[in-house]
Amino acid sequence: MSMKLHAPLSSRGNENKMEVDIVILGGWVLTLDNAKTTYNPGFVAIKDHYIVDAGFSTAYCASKYNPKTIIDATNCLVMPGLINTHTHAAMTLFRGYADDMPLKEWLFDHIFPAEAKHVNESLVYQGTRLAIAEMLKNGITTFCDGYFFCSAVAEAVSECGIRAVVGQGILDYPTPDTQDPSSNYTTAVKFIEKYHRFSDRVYPSIFCHSPYTCSDETLIRMKELCASAGVLFQIHLSETENEASEFEGEKNTRPTFHLKNLGILDSRTLVAHAVWLNEEEIQVLKESGAGVSHVVSSNMKLAAGVAPLPKYLETGINVGIGTDGCASNNRLDLLRDMDLTAKVHKVWSADPTVVPAFSVVEMATRRGAAAIGLGKKTGSIEKGKLADLIVLSMEAPHLAPVYDPYSHLVYCAKGSDVRDVIVNGKIVVRERQILSFDEMEVMEKVSEVSSRIKNSQIRVGESK
Amino acid sequence: MSMKLHAPLSSRGNENKMEVDIVILGGWVLTLDNAKTTYNPGFVAIKDHYIVDAGFSTAYCASKYNPKTIIDATNCLVMPGLINTHTHAAMTLFRGYADDMPLKEWLFDHIFPAEAKHVNESLVYQGTRLAIAEMLKNGITTFCDGYFFCSAVAEAVSECGIRAVVGQGILDYPTPDTQDPSSNYTTAVKFIEKYHRFSDRVYPSIFCHSPYTCSDETLIRMKELCASAGVLFQIHLSETENEASEFEGEKNTRPTFHLKNLGILDSRTLVAHAVWLNEEEIQVLKESGAGVSHVVSSNMKLAAGVAPLPKYLETGINVGIGTDGCASNNRLDLLRDMDLTAKVHKVWSADPTVVPAFSVVEMATRRGAAAIGLGKKTGSIEKGKLADLIVLSMEAPHLAPVYDPYSHLVYCAKGSDVRDVIVNGKIVVRERQILSFDEMEVMEKVSEVSSRIKNSQIRVGESK
Repeated sequence: MSMKLHAPLSSRGNENKMEVDIVILGGWVLTLDNAKTTYNPGFVAIKDHYIVDAGFSTAYCASKYNPKTIIDATNCLVMPGLINTHTHAAMTLFRGYADDMPLKEWLFDHIFPAEAKHVNESLVYQGTRLAIAEMLKNGITTFCDGYFFCSAVAEAVSECGIRAVVGQGILDYPTPDTQDPSSNYTTAVKFIEKYHRFSDRVYPSIFCHSPYTCSDETLIRMKELCASAGVLFQIHLSETENEASEFEGEKNTRPTFHLKNLGILDSRTLVAHAVWLNEEEIQVLKESGAGVSHVVSSNMKLAAGVAPLPKYLETGINVGIGTDGCASNNRLDLLRDMDLTAKVHKVWSADPTVVPAFSVVEMATRRGAAAIGLGKKTGSIEKGKLADLIVLSMEAPHLAPVYDPYSHLVYCAKGSDVRDVIVNGKIVVRERQILSFDEMEVMEKVSEVSSRIKNSQIRVGESK
Repeated sequence: MSMKLHAPLSSRGNENKMEVDIVILGGWVLTLDNAKTTYNPGFVAIKDHYIVDAGFSTAYCASKYNPKTIIDATNCLVMPGLINTHTHAAMTLFRGYADDMPLKEWLFDHIFPAEAKHVNESLVYQGTRLAIAEMLKNGITTFCDGYFFCSAVAEAVSECGIRAVVGQGILDYPTPDTQDPSSNYTTAVKFIEKYHRFSDRVYPSIFCHSPYTCSDETLIRMKELCASAGVLFQIHLSETENEASEFEGEKNTRPTFHLKNLGILDSRTLVAHAVWLNEEEIQVLKESGAGVSHVVSSNMKLAAGVAPLPKYLETGINVGIGTDGCASNNRLDLLRDMDLTAKVHKVWSADPTVVPAFSVVEMATRRGAAAIGLGKKTGSIEKGKLADLIVLSMEAPHLAPVYDPYSHLVYCAKGSDVRDVIVNGKIVVRERQILSFDEMEVMEKVSEVSSRIKNSQIRVGESK
């Protein structure tokens, strides 16, 4: 099916060709641009960090580009890398630590105590590296994080070759990295200053935990800091019904109105969860330009509820999919969460036409990138955008036959189908092997940390 | 972690050892027996078609068994093969053919016409082989099927090394293999006679489509035939609310009561879907001993509804998980449907404690086997049971660390983690390669058939 590039690396006849780093050739290119353009078979040309061209695989490509590396994508999909719009990456180390219990018991009796006991800079570094290994192999090229010891997150991101918005977690309570909340502001300023120009793949950010764990003053100061630095402000919003109604009981206003009134909501703000918003709150969100992370798997597992996603899509809000941390999901696998997203809203609204496959793929790519403030940089295959792409092999029984590639991405494809991953113009996964760091070394370090956690674990349940 | 068998194949010192075919050694053995026994590290010994022993990997195993083949399962889970309790395997060829549309439009404007046009013996054979390739690689060792041209299904099962209940589809309307419904009975008798002793992995069965597409007379005659032959009777029951309420409007009784009154429900009957059953119907089902296939993914995607699974589990009904055919799921991946099962009921009932991970693993193994009438033969690792097992590698970033293997199976593991598959004492998948048939040949044949389907496809939507 694919055009063959004859002697592509020969200098003969290359005088008028443009030198590029990578040409991906012969795959079914899903650009996810506004016009929903596809090329089959197509090519993508990459130079330095950027996509310089994309189109049908014809003689044009062979005559125009002289690539250092050719990736043969015959029988593969080529698409933008997936965007994980909400996670707490280091929490991979608490994957499956406590399941199937009420949210408050899970959080206050298990997760918070475990975090208080174990979370330190080293754990965050190791847990984030483990998360990055998992995410890259699942085709995620950008993630949006919020946690503690964020320097360790930024270092792991920088080393491991992925792209990330790294959010410093802020609460008006003692946290694993800040015993005295009055020092939060200084911590945040220092973090942003240090990492603002640290790496072209690290985007510092502030993650205020929620309207009920941060005072109005904290929220306002942190948002002002974000605005002046031009970075993303993140916050959990109305994850559970109780949380929203208790807030309303106390403050006499819905959480979304409250954030609006404080000046928090604009196009450089991401709200995560956004499960319990009424019609007026959705309208406020829409008008503000804020992005939404739909955290479907975690919301289902913790029985938090089902967000009004069909309305978000209808309204045109920039909504992406977020995995949440591994303590509540328990995996960083956007392809699985895409399937959940498509299916849960159909059964929830008793309408099999809502949240169709193509919309879900948009959420996982272009819309997700826009939601976290990177819509101009990544999320689609377009000239001038950063070269964040994945090559997904379609040569497997579970992907045959193919009538519609978007349907297959949402309803059939697995993380293990992701063959190659390119971030920022660099090949970081090739034939399912991570090239940008030593996966085995990460696994060994994780084993040491998790042994300590296991040894002090509070055992629950009888069935183990 | 694993005990090493020194010179296991040497004849020296083997005089008093039992000759066995396979010993699986050093893995974390989850037996899924009634006592929830696990051995870590453990072993399983297999001779001919059967499990002859299982226990901790100690010197005992080395001293007692002399195996022809040793499978090193260090850092792996060893567990019963997964049981897919409801599918229409050949429909892999319609995977992603039509999605995201109302059930009636999907069925009557797309799937039924496509079936009428394309389904023949050859398609069923090729589609079933494709399904078997997908299922084996996803760790499914037994499936329960209902479709047409069932001889072709039985032949594919027999050749490909999987275990299956093969149901001849029966409707009081012309079907792809039976233009004249009056010949249904003869077809059914012949099918059961031919395949009753054809292979020790093929279990013939009758699949009456539903109470609304089969007359009372058809249902009674077919159930009597099943009873006299000692085979499973299968039927779709109350998949959609409309279907159940229209039936009640017409017959003045709920579908479950109707089946009970006709004498259809007993422990050799499997009802698939069972979404819209009221409390009394659930009680009737429980008392009858009939099994239930919970078809969660298809029910979500088609917005059919969410079955009262927590009540089925509480009542003690034998309930397994079914994928449905690929026209509605669109994959035969029980590990993914296990995750869906655990999560959708939590959010549906606003209770994160319902349908915990261990229950889901039971549904996918022991309870599923019991639901399709094979509870004494397969579904757990116990002496005397058929040797249907899988070895699942845990050496991957998305499975680290491990606190609870059941949690990981439901919430983290992928089909691609299944490394080895044993059915009926034979290794059919080793290191993710199918040994029992030529996967590439299947893929090539499927490509030919699907090209014909594509060429005559009715295109829908604009986004493709």
